Amino acid sequence: MSARAEELRDRVAAFMEEHVYPAEHEYEDFVNKASDRWTIPPVMEELKRKAKAAGLWNLFLPKEHYPDGLTNVEYGQICEIMGRSPIGAEPFNCSAPDTGNMETIIRYGTEAQKERWLKPLMEGEIRSCFAMTEPAVASSDATNIQTEIRSDGDHYVINGRKWWITGAPDPRCKISILMGKTDPNAEKHRQQSMVLVPMDTPGITIVRPLTVFGYDDAPHGHAEIVFENVRVPKSNILLGEGRGFEIAQGRLGPGRIHHCMRSIGVAERALETLCRRALSRFPFGKSIADQGVTRHWIAESRMQIDQARLLTLQAAHMMDTVGNKAARAEIAMIKVVAPNVACTVVDRAMQVCGAGGLSQDFHLAAAYAHSRTLRFADGPDEVHRETVAKMELKKHQGANTGPRESFPPSSGQS
Amino acid sequence: MSARAEELRDRVAAFMEEHVYPAEHEYEDFVNKASDRWTIPPVMEELKRKAKAAGLWNLFLPKEHYPDGLTNVEYGQICEIMGRSPIGAEPFNCSAPDTGNMETIIRYGTEAQKERWLKPLMEGEIRSCFAMTEPAVASSDATNIQTEIRSDGDHYVINGRKWWITGAPDPRCKISILMGKTDPNAEKHRQQSMVLVPMDTPGITIVRPLTVFGYDDAPHGHAEIVFENVRVPKSNILLGEGRGFEIAQGRLGPGRIHHCMRSIGVAERALETLCRRALSRFPFGKSIADQGVTRHWIAESRMQIDQARLLTLQAAHMMDTVGNKAARAEIAMIKVVAPNVACTVVDRAMQVCGAGGLSQDFHLAAAYAHSRTLRFADGPDEVHRETVAKMELKKHQGANTGPRESFPPSSGQS
Amino acid sequence: MSARAEELRDRVAAFMEEHVYPAEHEYEDFVNKASDRWTIPPVMEELKRKAKAAGLWNLFLPKEHYPDGLTNVEYGQICEIMGRSPIGAEPFNCSAPDTGNMETIIRYGTEAQKERWLKPLMEGEIRSCFAMTEPAVASSDATNIQTEIRSDGDHYVINGRKWWITGAPDPRCKISILMGKTDPNAEKHRQQSMVLVPMDTPGITIVRPLTVFGYDDAPHGHAEIVFENVRVPKSNILLGEGRGFEIAQGRLGPGRIHHCMRSIGVAERALETLCRRALSRFPFGKSIADQGVTRHWIAESRMQIDQARLLTLQAAHMMDTVGNKAARAEIAMIKVVAPNVACTVVDRAMQVCGAGGLSQDFHLAAAYAHSRTLRFADGPDEVHRETVAKMELKKHQGANTGPRESFPPSSGQS
Amino acid sequence: MSARAEELRDRVAAFMEEHVYPAEHEYEDFVNKASDRWTIPPVMEELKRKAKAAGLWNLFLPKEHYPDGLTNVEYGQICEIMGRSPIGAEPFNCSAPDTGNMETIIRYGTEAQKERWLKPLMEGEIRSCFAMTEPAVASSDATNIQTEIRSDGDHYVINGRKWWITGAPDPRCKISILMGKTDPNAEKHRQQSMVLVPMDTPGITIVRPLTVFGYDDAPHGHAEIVFENVRVPKSNILLGEGRGFEIAQGRLGPGRIHHCMRSIGVAERALETLCRRALSRFPFGKSIADQGVTRHWIAESRMQIDQARLLTLQAAHMMDTVGNKAARAEIAMIKVVAPNVACTVVDRAMQVCGAGGLSQDFHLAAAYAHSRTLRFADGPDEVHRETVAKMELKKHQGANTGPRESFPPSSGQS
Repeated sequence: MSARAEELRDRVAAFMEEHVYPAEHEYEDFVNKASDRWTIPPVMEELKRKAKAAGLWNLFLPKEHYPDGLTNVEYGQICEIMGRSPIGAEPFNCSAPDTGNMETIIRYGTEAQKERWLKPLMEGEIRSCFAMTEPAVASSDATNIQTEIRSDGDHYVINGRKWWITGAPDPRCKISILMGKTDPNAEKHRQQSMVLVPMDTPGITIVRPLTVFGYDDAPHGHAEIVFENVRVPKSNILLGEGRGFEIAQGRLGPGRIHHCMRSIGVAERALETLCRRALSRFPFGKSIADQGVTRHWIAESRMQIDQARLLTLQAAHMMDTVGNKAARAEIAMIKVVAPNVACTVVDRAMQVCGAGGLSQDFHLAAAYAHSRTLRFADGPDEVHRETVAKMELKKHQGANTGPRESFPPSSGQS
Repeated sequence: MSARAEELRDRVAAFMEEHVYPAEHEYEDFVNKASDRWTIPPVMEELKRKAKAAGLWNLFLPKEHYPDGLTNVEYGQICEIMGRSPIGAEPFNCSAPDTGNMETIIRYGTEAQKERWLKPLMEGEIRSCFAMTEPAVASSDATNIQTEIRSDGDHYVINGRKWWITGAPDPRCKISILMGKTDPNAEKHRQQSMVLVPMDTPGITIVRPLTVFGYDDAPHGHAEIVFENVRVPKSNILLGEGRGFEIAQGRLGPGRIHHCMRSIGVAERALETLCRRALSRFPFGKSIADQGVTRHWIAESRMQIDQARLLTLQAAHMMDTVGNKAARAEIAMIKVVAPNVACTVVDRAMQVCGAGGLSQDFHLAAAYAHSRTLRFADGPDEVHRETVAKMELKKHQGANTGPRESFPPSSGQS
Repeated sequence: MSARAEELRDRVAAFMEEHVYPAEHEYEDFVNKASDRWTIPPVMEELKRKAKAAGLWNLFLPKEHYPDGLTNVEYGQICEIMGRSPIGAEPFNCSAPDTGNMETIIRYGTEAQKERWLKPLMEGEIRSCFAMTEPAVASSDATNIQTEIRSDGDHYVINGRKWWITGAPDPRCKISILMGKTDPNAEKHRQQSMVLVPMDTPGITIVRPLTVFGYDDAPHGHAEIVFENVRVPKSNILLGEGRGFEIAQGRLGPGRIHHCMRSIGVAERALETLCRRALSRFPFGKSIADQGVTRHWIAESRMQIDQARLLTLQAAHMMDTVGNKAARAEIAMIKVVAPNVACTVVDRAMQVCGAGGLSQDFHLAAAYAHSRTLRFADGPDEVHRETVAKMELKKHQGANTGPRESFPPSSGQS
Repeated sequence: MSARAEELRDRVAAFMEEHVYPAEHEYEDFVNKASDRWTIPPVMEELKRKAKAAGLWNLFLPKEHYPDGLTNVEYGQICEIMGRSPIGAEPFNCSAPDTGNMETIIRYGTEAQKERWLKPLMEGEIRSCFAMTEPAVASSDATNIQTEIRSDGDHYVINGRKWWITGAPDPRCKISILMGKTDPNAEKHRQQSMVLVPMDTPGITIVRPLTVFGYDDAPHGHAEIVFENVRVPKSNILLGEGRGFEIAQGRLGPGRIHHCMRSIGVAERALETLCRRALSRFPFGKSIADQGVTRHWIAESRMQIDQARLLTLQAAHMMDTVGNKAARAEIAMIKVVAPNVACTVVDRAMQVCGAGGLSQDFHLAAAYAHSRTLRFADGPDEVHRETVAKMELKKHQGANTGPRESFPPSSGQS
């Protein structure tokens, strides 16, 4: 880590302590008492102003496009700190899905697209969403996406139903990146395209917010959206027709590092809660921290967290040095490991905190719900394990199965 | 199982198919659209009327007091069926905490108490709550309960704060059984008493509903309640001063069988959902049901469910034949096993259902949240494992450690 | 359990206490000091004489052929007791693979075959082996078996290589039941046949004993055997040509109950060892039994053992009442559950016993090695899980995926 | 890693491929066919000569004493490669317990001690053992050690019984470092001392070899030893009376890194075996590698191995940069993680290899047995988890349990 990155990390940590953690209660409270839950608590805009003023802004910018930017290893470690709070990323204009969307426009957008959408996003004036998942098909396989993007003169006409569109209900959300089929007859990986669709385009209906466990995650939330004869100019396409799948692939690497490092932040804070609660409660004459099983959990949690962090930073390091493609197995691995570790550690913390740990008085149940979604987001665990297995097996295809793995070249082996 | 019990079971199953499952959506919908979420959906009173008319009513009544009643083994199997639906027990007037409260009054109540409270509860006219857990202390150890029940002439004056009082926010909840200290100086297990406290007694404030993974579980819910100088006549005491701990113990056995069998119903329905979804989705060219890991989960789920059911019925059988006390280890075991199996199977089902599985479109996330609370309710897993371990070790205390467990009576063993 | 079965069980248990456990050391010692490890310790023949004299002999005989015999539920519980000792089954003439072989001859043998082989087996005068598994193919799939059984006039000529032929090195082993192909062109499940092959037939070479985790399991052991132009009369065939697969299927049910119940006996004894050792050792100032993690293990072990036993007895009960075929899923389940529980409990006991637990001073490491083989014997865990999954999914094939498993008949579900 | 270290690593890897793996069969075979199993196979001395000639010798030497030596990070990575073979460390004079013993003498020995014992050890002319564990006490707590080292003029007289003394049966073993009590009345951590005891001193009896599972691990093995009035000159003491505990502590750090990195080598080779076997077997019509559960195992194994390696290298890095003491939690963590990962991966490989995987035809069962012992060696998992938990909890002792871990500073939290 460069000295500058270390300094940024320390300043982000200090900002979290001074401004973000103390604002959590107020933020939550505002939403719960608002007549309309889909209203942004003023404290968030305040936090953004402060962070921007402090120069802690847009830290996610990719080094290859912004040479002053941070490496994945550096930004990853800052992500972990932001991830400790459910409202920890937005003050720094570093929250999903905006970071992924901004990066996509940076990489694949035209100058006009950048001027129109990237600029206000980078200023934190608007927010965005990413419209890919569909209720009617198994969307973990992106080639299944069915939404139609039909060519009509110099416009595209979009028809389809999307769900789990995170951030769409946010009143500040002005733009979506939508994935759909421009050519259902093309080769399988060339059927999909991505287009920029302004959220105020006629024909877009937010059908309902979806809940995760019982959380609506207001004021951002997750929407089911119907697109009915939605017309956008052809200049809104990203990169070109049939290149949606390619963009989807490119988008995933850094986003996963961020998600995973935030998950590790979640796990660290949960372990902290676990330890503090365990030290402060005394059922049956001794503290929960003095019970052997609690100590077993603490040790296992520390081991799992430290290993997940090292693996994630290793993946980030490979992305920084040999590129996203060479890091493919590593990225798949962290996508499985980090959210599962977060779920496991948070679950242990809930058990130590008793019923209270499941309630609104602790950050744990919401953290669990969020971490649990990450076992699907960008593909379920099973898809990533498959990637890892395939690459591992490839090393041995065609290898003889002879003396190396068995001692005596036994009679009957085959 | 007697022929009569089998017939009842089949009729309950048929009633669920015909009336309860089809009402789930309407029930849920009513609550979500009501201006006040704490309003009872009319469909529930309708279901109750139908079940009562069909004679499927108060099936839980303990055989020792109602010789026509069902054994624990028989009622347990009916509980499993009711447990398949989140609204499955109430139509039959068999929902917690009312069953436990009714049983407590049956066992320990005076004739006057029965006339006043048991009767309307058994008619399904009112509901009740059980006020034990407190936010300020580790309530898994009942001797920690701090609420004061002070004697004042022929009244008790109650002061304290309770939480996780399930059913208290229900507008039909008219009576609570409260546990508190009548004599803080008595021997540790004689300090606590239980009193009947009408919910309209002055001094009772429902501070707030608590959420479980974001769910408020309206219209019943879980309340935090303050009792401030709440006065009840001394005739409201159950069994006598200092006998609260004793009642608490007696109350637990059957209640746990019921909870556990309902958990198994939850797990069965989740496995059904898992299988159906797996058969109907085709990512990457084959159904999810054709993927080896899914099949592994299905097999493991079936094994875990069947084992948990057998263990629970074995505990019920012991209660029926040799009594609650002799079944103590078995009851502790099922209290750990059944909710954990439910959580595990539901979690697998959520993974198969994808993000939708966490949303309001499936019964899974709510089932998970509920099952997760059962790992604390009536004591956390760890307390029950401790009971099992203590009883296992007792068998070997003082046993010699000689030839039986080691082959050669080795040189240096000690 | 009938009164007679209970009495037998108690007498077997008493015999184990009085005669078998005390003989374990002598048996082991004899083998280790013998100039030829493949010599039977005289104490075993003594134990057999005593058990036979006491009428505790051939308890395994199938009720359908021996109406005085025990049901599977009854014999299963006796098996558990025998399984507690590595030398616990043979004294009662109830050890594998003889019981399976005797049952096979009872079911499918001619009168001449019975006279020649069943009689001395039932008298305990000779022993037998079952020659199915082959090193060259994945034998978990019985259709892969390659050994050739060629017709030549009124003889069969056998050529092939088998391994893991348990009991073949035992000097008393006089007969094998061999599976091989009589017709490689027949329909897949009609290619295999079983023939009786006397072990002294020319052309049989025991190539070497195989070890299991370093154990040779002398004096019975597991052999690799070559059959080279081995000639047996055609009258040695069992049931008829092409019926080997069918016999293999029929053979498996009861054998699995026995294996599983013995595994539970192994687990029970390991838990006993664990508890006694934990109570007797005091590192860091308190007994190992006072450490929370040990207590967690003890509780988990008790829960797992009791559940596995109930599931196994349930499978046995189904076999007794509705037959092996209807119990197919249950039999597959116990085949996975019981050996895994045994491995888990034994492993915990080893951890509690420290390094000694892995050595010859305890019965644990050998018990682990044996239990571990049962995760392959008669098919690996994965094959049995597949059976369970297939049968579970079959229940839902064609079921609609509608309102039952999802609450609102949501917009986009498919 | 320095260029020189990388070059050494590559040369060690090449040496393994060219000389060590091909010699495994011959080594094993020699021992199995020898009239006395405790004879060194000549191929080992040959391998040593070759490695020494190649300059691949004593690579373990600690950098602080041998500035030309490798750092822990560097040597650790070489250890992993050596660990792939059960005979992989000795050719390079890098096998336990010699490396630990040599390091101990380097650190704490007098010049005379070095001349007499360190020199021939470093030349690979003799071997050594470390005599600490005792059968009569829980030796995971070193303060329990009971062997008496009584002062008698200018000699010590040693009486006691040790077991699990690895390498003692090796005919080349000439020296032991023995731990025992010089002063039973001293402060608890000052009672123990370490002395050099030549193995040919009168009064030493090797009672018997101990087996691990069924392996005697000849020709090195693990002995039970009686010391009866064994006299050594006082000049044989290491560091001074009462400093045994201190030496024991200092000894552990690097040794654990080595053990753990070798465990990772074991796991890597097992995964290789798993993949190759899975690709080469076809039960039920497709390769084992095409089954979902196998792929799940492969992916999980890769994730666990990579994480364990990173954690171990991180601990090594801390030892290199901030010292053994500051790395205490990390060293405790890897001591739990690495052997458990090795056991898990090897167990999966055995399952894929079928029964053969448990036999002498594969390296797996022996690797499992060895890895399993590492869950006790230098203290059982539970002791190390306790260390990790204690250090984690220490961070939070005295911390307030306020707003940081719970959202609203709730009413009743305490």
